[in-house]
Amino acid sequence: MVARIVPVEPFDLVVFGVTGDLARKKLIPALYHRQRAGQMPESARVIGCARSELGREDFRKMVRLSLDEAIPEAYRDRDALYAFLDTLDYLQVDARSDAGWPELSAKLRENAHPVCAFYLAVGPTLFGEIAERIGRHGCRAEDCRVIVEKPIGHDLASARTLNRQLAAHFDEHQIYRIDHYLGKETVQNLMVLRFANALFEPLWRSEHVDHVQITVAERLGVEGRGDYYDRTGALRDMVQNHLLQLLCLVAMEPPARLEQEAIREEKIKVVRSLRPIEGADLAAKTVRAQYRAGVVAEQAVRGYLDEEGIDPESETETFVAIKAEIDNWRWAGVPFYLRTGKRMGYRVSEIVIQFKRIPHLIFGDRIGAVQDNRLVIRLQPDESVKLAMMVKTPGPKIRLKPVHLNLNLADTFEDRSPLAYERLLLDVIKGTATLFMHRSEVEAAWRWVDTIREGWSFLGRRPRTYTAGSWGPEESIALMVRDDRTWYEHLA
Amino acid sequence: MVARIVPVEPFDLVVFGVTGDLARKKLIPALYHRQRAGQMPESARVIGCARSELGREDFRKMVRLSLDEAIPEAYRDRDALYAFLDTLDYLQVDARSDAGWPELSAKLRENAHPVCAFYLAVGPTLFGEIAERIGRHGCRAEDCRVIVEKPIGHDLASARTLNRQLAAHFDEHQIYRIDHYLGKETVQNLMVLRFANALFEPLWRSEHVDHVQITVAERLGVEGRGDYYDRTGALRDMVQNHLLQLLCLVAMEPPARLEQEAIREEKIKVVRSLRPIEGADLAAKTVRAQYRAGVVAEQAVRGYLDEEGIDPESETETFVAIKAEIDNWRWAGVPFYLRTGKRMGYRVSEIVIQFKRIPHLIFGDRIGAVQDNRLVIRLQPDESVKLAMMVKTPGPKIRLKPVHLNLNLADTFEDRSPLAYERLLLDVIKGTATLFMHRSEVEAAWRWVDTIREGWSFLGRRPRTYTAGSWGPEESIALMVRDDRTWYEHLA
Repeated sequence: MVARIVPVEPFDLVVFGVTGDLARKKLIPALYHRQRAGQMPESARVIGCARSELGREDFRKMVRLSLDEAIPEAYRDRDALYAFLDTLDYLQVDARSDAGWPELSAKLRENAHPVCAFYLAVGPTLFGEIAERIGRHGCRAEDCRVIVEKPIGHDLASARTLNRQLAAHFDEHQIYRIDHYLGKETVQNLMVLRFANALFEPLWRSEHVDHVQITVAERLGVEGRGDYYDRTGALRDMVQNHLLQLLCLVAMEPPARLEQEAIREEKIKVVRSLRPIEGADLAAKTVRAQYRAGVVAEQAVRGYLDEEGIDPESETETFVAIKAEIDNWRWAGVPFYLRTGKRMGYRVSEIVIQFKRIPHLIFGDRIGAVQDNRLVIRLQPDESVKLAMMVKTPGPKIRLKPVHLNLNLADTFEDRSPLAYERLLLDVIKGTATLFMHRSEVEAAWRWVDTIREGWSFLGRRPRTYTAGSWGPEESIALMVRDDRTWYEHLA
Repeated sequence: MVARIVPVEPFDLVVFGVTGDLARKKLIPALYHRQRAGQMPESARVIGCARSELGREDFRKMVRLSLDEAIPEAYRDRDALYAFLDTLDYLQVDARSDAGWPELSAKLRENAHPVCAFYLAVGPTLFGEIAERIGRHGCRAEDCRVIVEKPIGHDLASARTLNRQLAAHFDEHQIYRIDHYLGKETVQNLMVLRFANALFEPLWRSEHVDHVQITVAERLGVEGRGDYYDRTGALRDMVQNHLLQLLCLVAMEPPARLEQEAIREEKIKVVRSLRPIEGADLAAKTVRAQYRAGVVAEQAVRGYLDEEGIDPESETETFVAIKAEIDNWRWAGVPFYLRTGKRMGYRVSEIVIQFKRIPHLIFGDRIGAVQDNRLVIRLQPDESVKLAMMVKTPGPKIRLKPVHLNLNLADTFEDRSPLAYERLLLDVIKGTATLFMHRSEVEAAWRWVDTIREGWSFLGRRPRTYTAGSWGPEESIALMVRDDRTWYEHLA
């Protein structure tokens, strides 16, 4: 049942910032895996660009080292490695000057492939300049694509500026804004569960869903990015993009087709239906907090204010919990509880669809506790989709027991789920934009997030605190308890 | 999670016809298993009665032989066996005369237990006489119970007569009419799935269910019961009881409580909502057939008309297929296809809930075939509950694959599912009548079945034929194909 893999169209992929972390840890391993799977066409060219003075051979050595770190033993393959290295080239190109650009332009014009994509694996302040130079130096083919990644701005105004800079040189359909959460296998399976089965869609609404939880918990702290993080905070770093994107996929109406426009329209409708959180709602429906010193994974760790690069008076939040509400027919009265934090006890990203309690129990007591049905879609650390249901314990009596049915079944099919970046990179090459964000989505998300941020700064309260290694501050628990609910924290 | 087993109340169980097949193959092994499980109270008495002249020791020897045949090696247990044999006694009692009755009466009065039950494991012609003698000889305690099994009559009139004979000596709440299909583990689990989960009940209706199939296929022929079978036929032998009981459990509204009255009311409502099949509908919605010679399990077998005890001109059906319709709000427009036959290629009893097709496919082509969701509840040869759903095949593309989720999970809990008779016998002792048939259910089922039989005899056509070892006659397939459906015959 494994689909036969055929190579995609020949392409040129230019990666700006190829010596950076994103390129070395994510993009290059993803391309290698696709090479090994047989999906890279023979004449593909991957052209790394950065300011460093590197020869082609130095670059290939750097790539080999990156792959040695990133690729588990079981997936190493000498033939695939050499074939992959053969596709690689390097050019010293400066984003802030014209240095190197004529060479890049010449390289692209010799043996140009029909598909050409530029991955801007650099800070957003460089997006505009690079886009402009791509055009001015004649690097831009008819159908070329540009790929950018968060942060796309730090508020609505800056996002608009960035989007305008890109729009000056590329049409919207050429711009691929990546959110790698959307490339996760389980996010894809969520769409299949919803739209290829008649079972879930009738239940996927306020009559049958009690609430939804979306958790993105990290164990990491600011990890040397203190300066950036302190200017950003969890709301902008995680909620504006990852959490809202997941919320959109869960909440959207069935799109007419699995196509860019259809999906984008449904997602935008959701973001625009998010009830703004302002005034008294801010205290009742949002929680912001900073981690104190504590213990994570049996290691003592510092508090946020003692981290390198952090202003000791900083009011930046490292944790957010939000009770979001969607004002439309399908979701009226169904809260979407979002939470994300750094230095939490576990690394876990998951979506929980909590179905309503059965309206009436016919079995009497002494049958065991009845747990409400629940669909748990986990994106990290492992990917899985599990449905919690009640079944009968075999035996002469009626006794109930919850079971967790695995709807993902990755193990039964294949040994490895592709990395999110593999799917997304090849989607760009194929011109499939369904998993990317449209300008208006990004901007609508900023609008909702900005309202919360402005409210917080108006209130002027310091963030709450939580112990590193915990599940966040007490107020996060209270947010649920006030609604007679609890966070799902089942990590077995 | 295995429930702690405690013995039931001390009881006396009198088994009439204890030397017969039912007692030896089903009842005695069931009681032994409960002994081994620790559920038999120490002072329980099982008093076998029959016409044969047997001493207590002869009887115990007979029981040991029966257990040797019926109990798999893994479940043999010397201590349990001796404890069980200790509960056994035998009396020579004649149903048709007063011989032995005073002795039975005396035996019951010495050390009488609060609970006393009489299992009439004899032909229905003896029900009336035995009931009368139980009363006349003073064997009937306040709260005693009587257990009878199909056939409860051969049509509405004879069923009424039998029920009246029992009613002359016992109140309706003392009469336990067994259908062992209802004691199956998976039938119990069906109730739990429906009523302990919020997921299924909203889908369990005409908006979401396309149709239901109930199949009871046997490999056996008439097996020395030719004379009885030829006067009965598949409609009366199987449809009137087993298949209609299963139909009722699938189709009933949620009962207010898992109690005799509540469940019985819902089941009766279903039987009474069955649309009578008469006139032109008979040819369109029913199929009756007889098996011809063929091959079953690699063995050549005779045709029905060549079986011992069968009239060579017999028009008795060994196969029935019926398109049943339930005229109520929940099931309007949802056919329940029933079929049962002897000498079929497989031994399988199962209920298939076929959900409707998804209304619109968003994924485009090249994603693999989309199979409609289906819940398959298998009672024989193994017990299982499986939900067929579509999931995504892991990989960069969206490709769909059906999976069959096991909602039974017997293996994960315990090594052995109790036999249907174990559950039902202990339910009698405990006075739990939820899994037994009420007089009015039995009579309502006969009314529906009688209409079909009378129609057939009015039409005066000979039954169709089918080859032994097949899935029945062509007309059975045609019954589905005319509705653009097919029988589910997935035996993997």
